[in-house]
Amino acid sequence: MRRPSRVLIVGAGSGSPGSITLDGLDALRSANLIVYDRLIHEGLLEHARPEAELVYAGKAPGRHAMSQEEINELLLEGALRGLRVVRLKGGDPLFYGRGEEECVYLLRRGVPCKVIPGVPSPFAAAARFLIPLAGRGFSSSVGFTTGVLRGGRPLERERIARMLDALDTVVFLMATRLYPTIVEETLRVRGPDEGVAIVEDLGGSERLTLGAASSPEIRLARPEPPAIIIVGGAAKWAMLTRERSEYFS
Amino acid sequence: MRRPSRVLIVGAGSGSPGSITLDGLDALRSANLIVYDRLIHEGLLEHARPEAELVYAGKAPGRHAMSQEEINELLLEGALRGLRVVRLKGGDPLFYGRGEEECVYLLRRGVPCKVIPGVPSPFAAAARFLIPLAGRGFSSSVGFTTGVLRGGRPLERERIARMLDALDTVVFLMATRLYPTIVEETLRVRGPDEGVAIVEDLGGSERLTLGAASSPEIRLARPEPPAIIIVGGAAKWAMLTRERSEYFS
Repeated sequence: MRRPSRVLIVGAGSGSPGSITLDGLDALRSANLIVYDRLIHEGLLEHARPEAELVYAGKAPGRHAMSQEEINELLLEGALRGLRVVRLKGGDPLFYGRGEEECVYLLRRGVPCKVIPGVPSPFAAAARFLIPLAGRGFSSSVGFTTGVLRGGRPLERERIARMLDALDTVVFLMATRLYPTIVEETLRVRGPDEGVAIVEDLGGSERLTLGAASSPEIRLARPEPPAIIIVGGAAKWAMLTRERSEYFS
Repeated sequence: MRRPSRVLIVGAGSGSPGSITLDGLDALRSANLIVYDRLIHEGLLEHARPEAELVYAGKAPGRHAMSQEEINELLLEGALRGLRVVRLKGGDPLFYGRGEEECVYLLRRGVPCKVIPGVPSPFAAAARFLIPLAGRGFSSSVGFTTGVLRGGRPLERERIARMLDALDTVVFLMATRLYPTIVEETLRVRGPDEGVAIVEDLGGSERLTLGAASSPEIRLARPEPPAIIIVGGAAKWAMLTRERSEYFS
């Protein structure tokens, strides 16, 4: 029997098709089977061989979504057939990407796999609008959280408060429903002058809302998914650095 | 007078020269002047044009280190001369990379700049050893901190405790001196079974130490800079997933 080939779980990066790494591109170019998610820039797939099989596994409205089990089996079958399989995911596969699940599924069945990291979306948002997520003096620590926990439970208000207390900058992902709570806790824990930045539609229209927690533009904002909400030192730095607006205008 | 050209502040990524993005590579390939840091893989510079000027700005022992002011001026002069200037930094320029300082210096003097993000080192370490930094269920939140604050002050023990209390996973960078304190606080706040992972010499010999906070290999470890210390859900996931050792063995 043929030895199974190695599956590469590739982070496509975020924001632009040019944010994939060279290692990721090499994997794409030599793949026979590419299983890709939504949030993958279509331009990326142009790097695939003409004869490569492309399978959409994402969850866009109105399109069939493959279950995680179906995806796992597809990767496994491809590897057992000796195909060069690439699993292409937005951002980084191990940053809320479930790359580890797919990899362990394969390893348990004797199929080698490897993860190629990618630029996670908050880092792409930071570069787009010059909002430095971490740096000595203004943001020695930065934390990331989802707004939705296991089983669909929302992140608790008390946990938001603890993160705001422990970290200089907190980045909330998949948390648009919690936005009013995030602003309330920011006002309570950090005060009215703390900076808040909202990046919407990264890779598309790319809108930024930036201001103090107490400002009307922040209090009245209603960010749409998949917004990236940045609270604290990084956003404050951006607020106070007026020359910054030249950067992205 | 010539209009100054735009300076590109490029993240080289971490761990391997292939972790630079396509956008970053395009910038390198068209640059006339490249100002690069230590921690930049030498192989990357092979992408530069033969006639490009390469300036080392890093801080390796025994080599002259440029001050931040000297670097800023070099970038400014290059741009004013109309050169295509690339400032190449390890990891991501806005994740403890001071890219924002250089960018603002240029913007204040009428020189446009743009940051091209890169894979930050903890994400490269995570991919190397299959330690998923964030994922629903085992690590809904992840935070990063340096062990050294402004003015060279060490991170306070009490702040370490608060981060361990607020986040599922905490990643410590530039914190090898604090390692005994980190282990003590992990034992106190999270208990003896909490997972700890130490990644040393990423991109070089790439050593991993992984175990429970109370285990001898963790308690007696003396990580060397620039180690990446991962405490909490992500490391625990790695500890409990025995198939994982197949991944990197």
